[in-house]
Amino acid sequence: MKILVLGGDGFCGWPTALRLSARGHDVTIADNLSRRAIDKELGCESLTPIAEIPERLSAWHSVTGKSIRFVHLDIAQDYDGLLDLILEEVPAALVHFAEQRSAPYSMKSSRHKRYTVDNNINATNNVLAAVVESGLDVHIVHLGTMGVYGYKTPGLTIPEGYLSATLTDDSGASVKTEILYPTNPGSIYHMTKSQDQLLFAYYAKNDGLRITDLHQGIVWGTQTAETTLDDRLINRFDYDGDYGTVLNRFLVQAAVGHPLTVHGSGGQTRAFIHLQDSVRCIELAVSNPPKRHSRVAIFNQMTETHRVVDLATMISTMTGAEIRHVKNPRNEADTNELTVANLGLRSLGLVPTTLDAALLREITEIAQRFASRCDPAKIPCVSLWTTDAAGNCTAPVGAKLAAA
Amino acid sequence: MKILVLGGDGFCGWPTALRLSARGHDVTIADNLSRRAIDKELGCESLTPIAEIPERLSAWHSVTGKSIRFVHLDIAQDYDGLLDLILEEVPAALVHFAEQRSAPYSMKSSRHKRYTVDNNINATNNVLAAVVESGLDVHIVHLGTMGVYGYKTPGLTIPEGYLSATLTDDSGASVKTEILYPTNPGSIYHMTKSQDQLLFAYYAKNDGLRITDLHQGIVWGTQTAETTLDDRLINRFDYDGDYGTVLNRFLVQAAVGHPLTVHGSGGQTRAFIHLQDSVRCIELAVSNPPKRHSRVAIFNQMTETHRVVDLATMISTMTGAEIRHVKNPRNEADTNELTVANLGLRSLGLVPTTLDAALLREITEIAQRFASRCDPAKIPCVSLWTTDAAGNCTAPVGAKLAAA
Repeated sequence: MKILVLGGDGFCGWPTALRLSARGHDVTIADNLSRRAIDKELGCESLTPIAEIPERLSAWHSVTGKSIRFVHLDIAQDYDGLLDLILEEVPAALVHFAEQRSAPYSMKSSRHKRYTVDNNINATNNVLAAVVESGLDVHIVHLGTMGVYGYKTPGLTIPEGYLSATLTDDSGASVKTEILYPTNPGSIYHMTKSQDQLLFAYYAKNDGLRITDLHQGIVWGTQTAETTLDDRLINRFDYDGDYGTVLNRFLVQAAVGHPLTVHGSGGQTRAFIHLQDSVRCIELAVSNPPKRHSRVAIFNQMTETHRVVDLATMISTMTGAEIRHVKNPRNEADTNELTVANLGLRSLGLVPTTLDAALLREITEIAQRFASRCDPAKIPCVSLWTTDAAGNCTAPVGAKLAAA
Repeated sequence: MKILVLGGDGFCGWPTALRLSARGHDVTIADNLSRRAIDKELGCESLTPIAEIPERLSAWHSVTGKSIRFVHLDIAQDYDGLLDLILEEVPAALVHFAEQRSAPYSMKSSRHKRYTVDNNINATNNVLAAVVESGLDVHIVHLGTMGVYGYKTPGLTIPEGYLSATLTDDSGASVKTEILYPTNPGSIYHMTKSQDQLLFAYYAKNDGLRITDLHQGIVWGTQTAETTLDDRLINRFDYDGDYGTVLNRFLVQAAVGHPLTVHGSGGQTRAFIHLQDSVRCIELAVSNPPKRHSRVAIFNQMTETHRVVDLATMISTMTGAEIRHVKNPRNEADTNELTVANLGLRSLGLVPTTLDAALLREITEIAQRFASRCDPAKIPCVSLWTTDAAGNCTAPVGAKLAAA
């Protein structure tokens, strides 16, 4: 199958491109390399030494004999380039990772909020408009987030996108219907993914596009079967306060002897998935497109839920690392329950990689192996959701900029 | 009160700016004059001869002695200009009309879809980010649309934004809660207003901003007490297939002896409001801000609902115009019910202008007076929602562009 991977140089995009190529698909990556540029902006680097894209692709060819094409393209800015690429490649599927994906980064300043909204919404709308304009039947697979649900309805299992609801108006009249789970995003980044959902629903309804939206949990781990084939194929591992996901940050903290920093009490329950399962889910989604003129297919792409403090305890027990509770920079509840339905992808064939089975390997093969590359100054989360921790917004985020 | 009117040169923005100025507020208009540029793009003109903005403002000053400041600014593109303006003016309220507001225009081609999404979402996000960054307590009043609700839940009265809902998961567990009415937009334009809602909800929650979102019905009429004071203050009247709203198009069709063109059976029920009531609603909203750290205040800004065919019949009876049913270019139900709650603005003091009372004056004072300026070729709606009327999307909207 011919497949376009938009954002195929990123943390999830790169291993996905390799997996799809390994399975015999004809893969083209389009990426603007923005993630590498943001590394430079933040003065950070992947813990793992990642190769430049030409070296990555030639390594893949020399190891497997398979070719992946690369197109340097900013899909949010260059609509004509995107449309031309689709018309030239005639892909059966298009996997859309090409969005700014860090919640803390999206909250750093007005500029970061605006970049995230502008980039993510235009990227998604350009993909949808280009597929309609091409007239081709391209299945769009999008990486969404569990974060669109928010954590607001204790007592309910988070469904796979849609929920049965009885709506009642002021006169007492009631209607039973099915609705998109009422969104409650916790950051500008998550908000853009909620806006994406509206774009998908609209284009599926109006233009009959086939769309799968994968609401992904927090990804942990670094490598997949394909990225371990050669050191030049190694995947990125972010441990900084903006792009490092909680579990990967704990792993590197443990490896370098830094205390495991837990926000608040750590009572936040979150959904997790190992990177190799994430890649497997995308493979399953690509192979199982919804029908044309049906609603968007939504799957929860996660395998386990854990309280953050329990993860820290687990890693502390394995490694002896100290746990340190720090003030939470985010504007979120200190504790929450979370139960998630995930039978969709399980029923298509996903067999979860459990934390128990893979955590220790991740610590020794990645975190400890590359610990010398770690800059401990980059570990703390410094993005604040609001300037005063009580959420009173008494001072502006960018007051210094405005005054300058 | 110091008030910024973003988009203050447009159909609703201009009479709003005059009304607020007439009431003694200190008004500054910011506008990129995009609506006049789109007239040129479409080869259309307002039926009424509208003056350039400097002439408008000097007429207002000579007639009333009051001054309105004008800033030529594209708030979607020039964030720094917007932030500087807010810091300089320190407005108590900001009325945000600065969005592309035609559904048919938003559906003309990929370019129009992309312009509408890019312009509207960045405009709204820039306003919100700039207010946060300014650190000022500015009440944001936004012109939304009844169209975000869609017409999908017969049997329910459309509430003012929020709905009581019982949500049930697959295990049968239930939670009773209040949700934003599940959005079901009928065009890319309406979709952007649904995305705006998510932005407002997010910034109200995270930053405690005061926001009022006015879900407006279809506006009809041309003039207000202020725009009739002098011919140089006259408001725009759009009768073309893209920007002309249904009732205004019927009025001009009757005046020039063109048949009243009804889409399909005309069984679509829609919500309406006269322009002078619209302006009054904004005045009421500005005077009644929600508290900080409360949810977004949502009002339905409409006074009557009518079936389209009934409006045509009413005007036909008054004028003798013929009614012609034409194929509906939109992708929408041919018939729908619509009952709308609108007590919020009524309880603040809105006294509706009824169709019965004002229709005939609109025909004689505007449509007939300026009938000689009408270009009948611009009347038909030519934007198609999908290329084939069955909505099968067998041919791409922009196939010609792609092939060129």
